[in-house]
This record gives sequence, structure tokens and C-alpha cells, in this order.
Amino acid sequence: MPPAVLAIHGGAGPSPAGEPDGGASRWPRQSEGLTAALRTGLAVLSDGGPALEAVIAAVAVLEDDEQWNAGRGSALTRAGTVEMDAAVADGRSRRLAGVACVTGVRHPVEAARAVLDDGRHVLLAGPGAEDIARSAGLDFEPPDWFVTERRRQALEHFSVGTVGAVARDHNGHLAAATSTGGRTGQLPGRIGDSPIPGAGTWADDATCAVSATGIGEAFLRAAFAHEVDARLRLSGVDLDTACREALAAVHAAGGDGGCIAVAPAGPPVLPFSTALMHRGWAEVGGPLWVAAQPGPFERGE
Amino acid sequence: MPPAVLAIHGGAGPSPAGEPDGGASRWPRQSEGLTAALRTGLAVLSDGGPALEAVIAAVAVLEDDEQWNAGRGSALTRAGTVEMDAAVADGRSRRLAGVACVTGVRHPVEAARAVLDDGRHVLLAGPGAEDIARSAGLDFEPPDWFVTERRRQALEHFSVGTVGAVARDHNGHLAAATSTGGRTGQLPGRIGDSPIPGAGTWADDATCAVSATGIGEAFLRAAFAHEVDARLRLSGVDLDTACREALAAVHAAGGDGGCIAVAPAGPPVLPFSTALMHRGWAEVGGPLWVAAQPGPFERGE
Repeated sequence: MPPAVLAIHGGAGPSPAGEPDGGASRWPRQSEGLTAALRTGLAVLSDGGPALEAVIAAVAVLEDDEQWNAGRGSALTRAGTVEMDAAVADGRSRRLAGVACVTGVRHPVEAARAVLDDGRHVLLAGPGAEDIARSAGLDFEPPDWFVTERRRQALEHFSVGTVGAVARDHNGHLAAATSTGGRTGQLPGRIGDSPIPGAGTWADDATCAVSATGIGEAFLRAAFAHEVDARLRLSGVDLDTACREALAAVHAAGGDGGCIAVAPAGPPVLPFSTALMHRGWAEVGGPLWVAAQPGPFERGE
Repeated sequence: MPPAVLAIHGGAGPSPAGEPDGGASRWPRQSEGLTAALRTGLAVLSDGGPALEAVIAAVAVLEDDEQWNAGRGSALTRAGTVEMDAAVADGRSRRLAGVACVTGVRHPVEAARAVLDDGRHVLLAGPGAEDIARSAGLDFEPPDWFVTERRRQALEHFSVGTVGAVARDHNGHLAAATSTGGRTGQLPGRIGDSPIPGAGTWADDATCAVSATGIGEAFLRAAFAHEVDARLRLSGVDLDTACREALAAVHAAGGDGGCIAVAPAGPPVLPFSTALMHRGWAEVGGPLWVAAQPGPFERGE
């Protein structure tokens, strides 16, 4: 059996405007945040836990960390409110679930899992999704808890947002999860690719698990995550090629971004077409690797 | 240039329960409704109009016709309300747009087109989508206008709903549109496959235009419409084979239904895995063909 692995991202985007150091001063804290999420997800895998639980645990850590655009610290809509989207995909059952435009739920990724467990629907928006989360006993927070000072001042940092995780567990099962606050200044009610099966999130034990980040509209137009799956199944290319070809389709559809993906064997791939993508990965028992710039990873402490 | 063609559907589903005639007594009116929608869409194509306008015009006729589950006469949620989803896909530009959980908009398909024209987002839910529709000057109706006596009495007819259209115009451009009231008794906020790019609706001049109907959750899990596109592009099968293979994936994902699809050349295909699918098609200048049962079409008058 190939080793259990986890990969995560904290969003892809351009270099931060007006920051001569390219945002490098933020890296120590970002690296720390990525490392914390990796450790949490890896602990699940080390204990023999399922990939689905590992990706949810890793994403929940990123949602609580206000430097990422998901959960607390989400981007604000044009109306100054926080509306969050999230999805989970279980490659073992080939089932997915997403929530869109939810407010108040501390961990939207757990709301998506509640929709998966409920089983009646695949995609739920707004109060209907919040009702499922409430019935599942999830934590809620008041609106102000989600709105951080940095977002209120529209100190938009480089990332268009979105956090995500993909994992392969000790039984070879794959899973993916994605969570986002959307785009700064988006219209209320806007849904991006993150919660949409086949756009921002996908998992099938036979092919891959994928979580995307970038300009959601272009990822929707390219049906990105399912395009990766289709190229693996129907064209027979390898995972890195499939991701890069699908990112080229996203670019043709008017946007850029990146993804993390894992196949039934081999290390994860973490390609992106933007200047930066905050990302990390590790095998169970191995070192943690994190990076923001293109090029080599560094050891996460 | 291949002839301009239009195909439409009024939903796929099982035979109506408790009706010894298999619902045959309803067929004259259904046939009339399908024929009216075909004529309206064909008039656009005959005048040299674009495929996108033809599918929107045909779907708008079906939305106003209360015997279908879209617009007026939509299925009721568990809360007794009407929430509608719709999408449009323009194969020429490879752009799509969808609206979800909208209320009050007489023609949800036109709200989807308004989101396409607005261009900022691909998918909008609830009040945000309604705001775009209002800004575009679309007609609104009071909540009771949408709720028909038949739906209120939960006289659920055989169809799980959904109307749609696909077209190829005189310039070879393809388009698709889908509109639905969702599933009877669905949770408020539930979004099915209809408004989701790559699930219920897709169009690309290079491959096909597709509109699906059936158990939306399974179509979402299979990324159905994009699977049709991917099989045409990557496997090189013909349109009918691609649709049937993708419907098999939907069945494996726990649901059944059907679709209408058109390629850059040749007649449309209208396969389904349920007992019935109300459907029709015509070439510009040719006879109208309509059917509900499997097997041969009859002439629409």
C-alpha cells in the first residue's frame, strides 16, 4: 500500500500589491499556520483514520486561522457581510456534498460533512444548510466573530482565498475538502467553484482527489476538478499532466489559480499558474514541506 | 453548414403511480405544451437568431406552462414555498451562468441570462440573483402566482421536474438552457444539478450542448453534462454513446434521468433511463417530433 499522504493549500493568487518584499514578512506566520494544519490532518492519518476525516480536520484548522480566506477572516461581500462556501468529497463512496452562502457556522467544512451525512441532498445554500449544521450540533458564532479588522479595512492580501486539503489514507482511500469566504466585494449570493462538485472539489478512489483555488468563475466554466478526473480516466495522462492541462483550460476560461491533488499512488502534486500558492504536504512519518513561491519547498517546523 | 435544430424536454421520471393509463390522458395537453415551446424556439432559429436566444425562448414558454416543474407550477419545498434554479450555456463563448433558490422571478432562465450578461459571477443564489434580475428589468410575480393548486395538493405527477432546451443555429453555434422547481418536499436551500455548470447544463461549440433532467443529486455526483463533453473530447465516442455512458455513471451514483444533447453536426439525441421523458425536437423547416414513452416520436401539431 502506498504511504498515507496529506496536502493542503491556503489560496493561490498574485503577489501582494504595494509590498516591496512580495509579502515575505508574512511568511513566518503563514508557514506556521500551514504546519499546524498539516500536523492536525497527519495525526488523523497516523492513527489509521480515514482520508475524509483528515482533510476535514486540516481544513477546520485553516478556517479558524484568520490569515486565510475561510471561516474566521473570510473576505467580505459588497454588503460587508461574510458568506462562506465549503465542500467535502469522499473518494471511497464517490459522494460529495457542498454548502453555499452560509453564515454563522464556525466550520463550514463540517457543515458540508453534515450535508454528506444527512444524505438527502448534495448542495444546500443559506438557511437550509445552516439548519442541517445546527441539527448536527455544530458550533455557531455571531456575525462579528467572522469579520476581522484586516478584512474590514479591505486590506486585501494577495490571496483570492480558499483553503483546501486532499489526502490518501492507509487503506488507499482518497478525499478532498475546500472552504472559502469567496471574493472580496462579491455580490451577496455569489457561489464560486469551491462547493461545486466537479468544479473546485472532487474525489474518486480510482482516479484522484482534488481541491482548487483561484478565480472561481473560471474554474466553474472549466469544470476544473472533474476535468482533472476525466483526463486521468479517459486520456491516461499522469496526475501532474492532468492538473496542468486542466489549469490551462481554466486560463482559457479567463482565470488563474492552482490546485492540490493526490492519486492512488505517488506523492501529491501542487501546481499553480499564479505568482504564489500557499501550500504544504507530508507523508505520514516524514518531514513537513511548505512553500508560497514557485520552486522548492522548505521544511515546516 | 448542418441544419439548425432544437430539442426540448419537460422532465424525466417514472410512470405516474396510481394511474392505470400510465398518464396517457395527460398526453394531449403535454404534447401541445411541448409543441408550443418548439415553435417558439424554432421561430428564433428560422429568423437566423442565435442558439442562445432560441433555447431561452423555448424554456420561457415551458416555465409559463404550469404542467411542467419550472417557473409557474414548480414543485414545493418542505416549507411549502417555490425555489427555482436555472442555467444557460453559450457554446460560442463557452460561458455559462446559473441562478439558484430564486423566488418571484417569472422566468428564471432569463435571470440566468442576466447573470451571464452581467458577467461578474457564474452562479448566484437567492436575493443576489433576484437583484440582478430586477436590474435587468425582468418580470416578477407574487409568491402565490407560482404555487398551483395541483402542487399544493401534492398531486405530484410523474416528473421529477425540470425543463430544458438545446439548439444549434444557422452559424453552427450551440447553446443549452435548463430550468426547474427542484424536487417536491426538498429542503429549502437545496440546489440540484440544473443550475450547475457541468452537472445539468453545458455547451461548447467544439463538442456539444446538453440539458439534463432526473435525480439532481446523482447528476451532481457524476458531473453529468461535463462527462458527456469529456467523453466526446477525450474518448472520441459519438454523441449518443457519450450520453448513454454518462447516464450509466449517473445510475451508478444512485439516480436515473435523461438528457437532450446536440453536437456540431447531426440530429439531437434524447436518451433516458427512466420510464418516461417528455421531449421534442425539430429541424428548422421540418416537422415537429414529440414523445413521452420510449420508442418512436409522433408528429407534433
